[in-house]
Amino acid sequence: MDIIVIQPDTPEENIRHILKKLESKGLSANISRGTERTIIGVIGDTSKVTDDEEHAIKAMPGVENVLRILKPYKLASRDFKKTPTLIDVDGVIIGGNKIQVMAGPCSVENRSNIVSIAEKVKSAGATILRGGAFKPRTSPYAFQGLGEEGLKYLAEAKKKTGLPIITEVMDPRDLEVICEYTDIIQIGTRNMQNFRLLLEVGSVNKPVLLKRGLSATIKEWLMSAEYIMSRGNHNVMLCERGIRTFETATRNTLDLSAVPLLKQLTHLPVVVDPSHGVGKWDLVAPMSRAAVAVGADALIIEVHTNPEEAFSDGEQSLRPEMFTQLMDDLKRVAQAVGREI
Amino acid sequence: MDIIVIQPDTPEENIRHILKKLESKGLSANISRGTERTIIGVIGDTSKVTDDEEHAIKAMPGVENVLRILKPYKLASRDFKKTPTLIDVDGVIIGGNKIQVMAGPCSVENRSNIVSIAEKVKSAGATILRGGAFKPRTSPYAFQGLGEEGLKYLAEAKKKTGLPIITEVMDPRDLEVICEYTDIIQIGTRNMQNFRLLLEVGSVNKPVLLKRGLSATIKEWLMSAEYIMSRGNHNVMLCERGIRTFETATRNTLDLSAVPLLKQLTHLPVVVDPSHGVGKWDLVAPMSRAAVAVGADALIIEVHTNPEEAFSDGEQSLRPEMFTQLMDDLKRVAQAVGREI
Amino acid sequence: MDIIVIQPDTPEENIRHILKKLESKGLSANISRGTERTIIGVIGDTSKVTDDEEHAIKAMPGVENVLRILKPYKLASRDFKKTPTLIDVDGVIIGGNKIQVMAGPCSVENRSNIVSIAEKVKSAGATILRGGAFKPRTSPYAFQGLGEEGLKYLAEAKKKTGLPIITEVMDPRDLEVICEYTDIIQIGTRNMQNFRLLLEVGSVNKPVLLKRGLSATIKEWLMSAEYIMSRGNHNVMLCERGIRTFETATRNTLDLSAVPLLKQLTHLPVVVDPSHGVGKWDLVAPMSRAAVAVGADALIIEVHTNPEEAFSDGEQSLRPEMFTQLMDDLKRVAQAVGREI
Amino acid sequence: MDIIVIQPDTPEENIRHILKKLESKGLSANISRGTERTIIGVIGDTSKVTDDEEHAIKAMPGVENVLRILKPYKLASRDFKKTPTLIDVDGVIIGGNKIQVMAGPCSVENRSNIVSIAEKVKSAGATILRGGAFKPRTSPYAFQGLGEEGLKYLAEAKKKTGLPIITEVMDPRDLEVICEYTDIIQIGTRNMQNFRLLLEVGSVNKPVLLKRGLSATIKEWLMSAEYIMSRGNHNVMLCERGIRTFETATRNTLDLSAVPLLKQLTHLPVVVDPSHGVGKWDLVAPMSRAAVAVGADALIIEVHTNPEEAFSDGEQSLRPEMFTQLMDDLKRVAQAVGREI
Repeated sequence: MDIIVIQPDTPEENIRHILKKLESKGLSANISRGTERTIIGVIGDTSKVTDDEEHAIKAMPGVENVLRILKPYKLASRDFKKTPTLIDVDGVIIGGNKIQVMAGPCSVENRSNIVSIAEKVKSAGATILRGGAFKPRTSPYAFQGLGEEGLKYLAEAKKKTGLPIITEVMDPRDLEVICEYTDIIQIGTRNMQNFRLLLEVGSVNKPVLLKRGLSATIKEWLMSAEYIMSRGNHNVMLCERGIRTFETATRNTLDLSAVPLLKQLTHLPVVVDPSHGVGKWDLVAPMSRAAVAVGADALIIEVHTNPEEAFSDGEQSLRPEMFTQLMDDLKRVAQAVGREI
Repeated sequence: MDIIVIQPDTPEENIRHILKKLESKGLSANISRGTERTIIGVIGDTSKVTDDEEHAIKAMPGVENVLRILKPYKLASRDFKKTPTLIDVDGVIIGGNKIQVMAGPCSVENRSNIVSIAEKVKSAGATILRGGAFKPRTSPYAFQGLGEEGLKYLAEAKKKTGLPIITEVMDPRDLEVICEYTDIIQIGTRNMQNFRLLLEVGSVNKPVLLKRGLSATIKEWLMSAEYIMSRGNHNVMLCERGIRTFETATRNTLDLSAVPLLKQLTHLPVVVDPSHGVGKWDLVAPMSRAAVAVGADALIIEVHTNPEEAFSDGEQSLRPEMFTQLMDDLKRVAQAVGREI
Repeated sequence: MDIIVIQPDTPEENIRHILKKLESKGLSANISRGTERTIIGVIGDTSKVTDDEEHAIKAMPGVENVLRILKPYKLASRDFKKTPTLIDVDGVIIGGNKIQVMAGPCSVENRSNIVSIAEKVKSAGATILRGGAFKPRTSPYAFQGLGEEGLKYLAEAKKKTGLPIITEVMDPRDLEVICEYTDIIQIGTRNMQNFRLLLEVGSVNKPVLLKRGLSATIKEWLMSAEYIMSRGNHNVMLCERGIRTFETATRNTLDLSAVPLLKQLTHLPVVVDPSHGVGKWDLVAPMSRAAVAVGADALIIEVHTNPEEAFSDGEQSLRPEMFTQLMDDLKRVAQAVGREI
Repeated sequence: MDIIVIQPDTPEENIRHILKKLESKGLSANISRGTERTIIGVIGDTSKVTDDEEHAIKAMPGVENVLRILKPYKLASRDFKKTPTLIDVDGVIIGGNKIQVMAGPCSVENRSNIVSIAEKVKSAGATILRGGAFKPRTSPYAFQGLGEEGLKYLAEAKKKTGLPIITEVMDPRDLEVICEYTDIIQIGTRNMQNFRLLLEVGSVNKPVLLKRGLSATIKEWLMSAEYIMSRGNHNVMLCERGIRTFETATRNTLDLSAVPLLKQLTHLPVVVDPSHGVGKWDLVAPMSRAAVAVGADALIIEVHTNPEEAFSDGEQSLRPEMFTQLMDDLKRVAQAVGREI
């Protein structure tokens, strides 16, 4: 809360009432009386004025609007930390010059399948293995993931390939078991504002990949990162995965402009998920190239040895041979923008 | 999955491959070869084909699109149950001819405040008391609610006024204590697809008010109701509270057309929350009148004795005297549409 | 342009450069140096600073943001004219206590059809006849309207029933002929920002119904009204007809909160079009009741004697007997909110 | 209209009525009676069934939904023409291996300014000059462009540099004079569904750049291209320039996934406008790189010698030296994806 716009024809008494309220919070005011509007500039440490207090001030008679100047997030802000955050996952650095690629199936389906995919994505150049064991599904009748069994298969795939693992947590009660197996904790789109879950992952010592909510603004997304960081875990990466718009020709609308914008606003690494962003395997390759060109620090891509038998997300998964081809293409694009992959 | 559209110039071999896949799932097919497209109508119990299997079929070579005819929800559907569901909350019936009004502050702030508001909304005609003890907040630095202490104050207000209580649950781990105090469990907007939480409230014996997600389609919303019902708790009411659109002049866009549409699709009662829908106290009254006129079974409205001191949502809370006036207006509108309030 | 927010660590030289720019426009400045941001309050007649100049200032080094306090529209604003505008259409007053109902088919199809519908909607209580002669159609292969022939049929229907007419103009070159026949000129959704057309209708002496663009903000909509008014025609009414959102279960999302919000921002009458808002005839009645309850000054409703043979918009047209029933219902709702119909 | 879904419990009489309607249009039907729904497959040349007729069928008793299989556009479709369309603008080929760059100011401001910018963008590698003479502006009080005077200055810049010109038409009455000067006609975002204007530019012998409407679906956009092509002008290029979403941190959301999707659906060249897509000069470079990587055939970029004095769009214009740097970067990205610039 930094600037209070007063409605025209507001009685002086109401203005005095507002000024008293500011005083009671230890703030002072600078009044500008223009020909059409009076404006109160609030002086003092307005960062301590909460959104709630701002909303309460909006309810005061005579207040037309309250404009906030300062960003509501601090730890996540570039103002707070000027240098980019590098996240070290078992020696794989996210946020540096090398663009990391996380690849694997939507769901872990069985032991041999995940091991086979892991070997294939590794040989194509992926550096992290993705795979879901606890799955958030729109329908209660859909496959919900293998749970801890899936985590064990992931661990075997890691043992075989050396690839660190990323998997999703949906429930605070699963966090402990997931942390035993995973190297990166994923917070999914539908849980971006599951604030209790954010606080929990903020208390563990594992990097967190925070996906953008389906209709989350950049500001809300950074506030969710702030939730995690406020508990001490500063190893947060932000993953753009498509927002919901009016367009139905693609599953979501991948907002690539979020990448360079986030690079201005925050020091945290930025990841792009083209698979969920578009929802169609034949659009994944061009959008991956674009994600590299726009400045992403990492990609997360769904790969399946047999998409038409996949337990979930078959229509947006790449076959290993397509993924291998894509990695070759991405290397050239990365080089063209001064990075490597 | 009911209709498979084949891409032009698809080899017969690919079509045979698709037919075999259907057979392997116990389904048969009806092929129509048009001049521009070939279409496969799927015959058999397609309700057992999951979305995942549909997505996998979309990944098959030659498939242009898969169109589903049947609705993916069952228990929540009007096809399944033709008569409206009436939910009995301590004698207050939601879904019947009488429109119920839930009113109270955004957050429970202290004992005397909640008791005082409860008395005032009761005397104005409200039949259920709302108040948040566990609060989902965009910022980790905002007031997070009083927790169990808040629940106790709500219980005192209930004892004094006889009003049943509705309050929100955010975390499965809080459910037990919340159930000790509350009469209706609220699932908030940000948790509409917190599937684990939905399953948990599906297992308790309390009515649930399920708010629509910020960018949830009607179908996704009903699927979330289905999650709850799939565990046995059929006392679910759906609460429209505004969706996220491009318009920023209001906090959200209250989608009142959802009310009559839901009445066609489902037997569950429909509630409207005009306070969050618009986010400005001076728009709450006209939107409440509209909600009654459009056919809502209940309203949920934020009321605070002193909005400019409210711990949260001050700018959208009505003062008790405005709420009393509004209740008078709503009575007339309810009567005009053949209902009472 | 009223408040300029300066980026942290901006050299004094850049700030001086900004101040000089303001001086060159005859404005002075009030600098507040906070702990985290420096803010420049601009003093003087900022209403003369155009959006273009604001954008140019945003391009200056050191400028983080420019916040405008004043509304960009003047003639359309409540600040400019405090009393509601009443528009007299051949004795039918729009904007007064009586809610007017405009009804008729989407397209004029032939002489007997439009006359027959006109008689039916009149006897049900409609006071204005709608009907399209020049039709904006998504497809070049769809029925484009009868053109001037359609206008003649409308004129015959008017002669028979006495109902004034509203019809749409799509092209400045048709305006003259349309003005010969019509009583209200309609600007359709897709032309809300056809600025040349707005200027043209601003120069004629006929009331204008300006539909909201599919994704127009309230502010942009009022700016389009301002275009018309800036040429001298102040008889503009604003018609909410649904906005485009992510939801596809309805044709559009009817934003009824726009009605009371516009009543605060502007003195112009507000009309609601529930037919296009929802796109399904069986949702038109409840949304019409809601539109009356929320404070609309008029409704515009599609009615057709045989929707399944309608040349356009069949699925959202009411049959005359449903429309008659609806008018009865609306009378009761209007009375409940202190108005008549 | 290809598949008609019947509501459960629909009397046979209603189904017979629907079948008769189809017969009357020369179509036959294939009925599938499932356990939960009856479906009518429509056989015959359904491409002649208009959207209007489809809507009328939706109004028939017993019809739950009508699903269309065929795309509503023909001339614009890849099904109609398999090879990419190459557009030759004075020897500059759009749609081929070389990516063309259109650059210049938002508005033509005066003679020396446009000539100077033209020389600078040419020496940086741009192959087409952009510049607005007739400007669509949200406010009636903003700079509306120099009109024909601006066209003359563009012509002088063309004479000096040899660069072909693109400029916008807003009104059918200006088309003749614009065609005297310009090489490509631009249809702006706000006129994408100004159908009369589309028909007019469909009748002239100049290539057309058709910008996507602010909230236009891919399908609607292609239907607008179809409007132009239906009049004989097949030299249409589609320009993605950002869509309107809930996100306000950028001016619009640039939907880069539209590029590869359009490449599947249509044979027309695809252009990207990163300047309007993001609205901030410091995001233009990364989004331009992404546009090249994703497969755009051309870019259109705002460049101004002194953005802080620009008459319009100052905040999103690049200075010539930044543009030169960007062109160097784009060359490398183009090469990495097998193209040149």
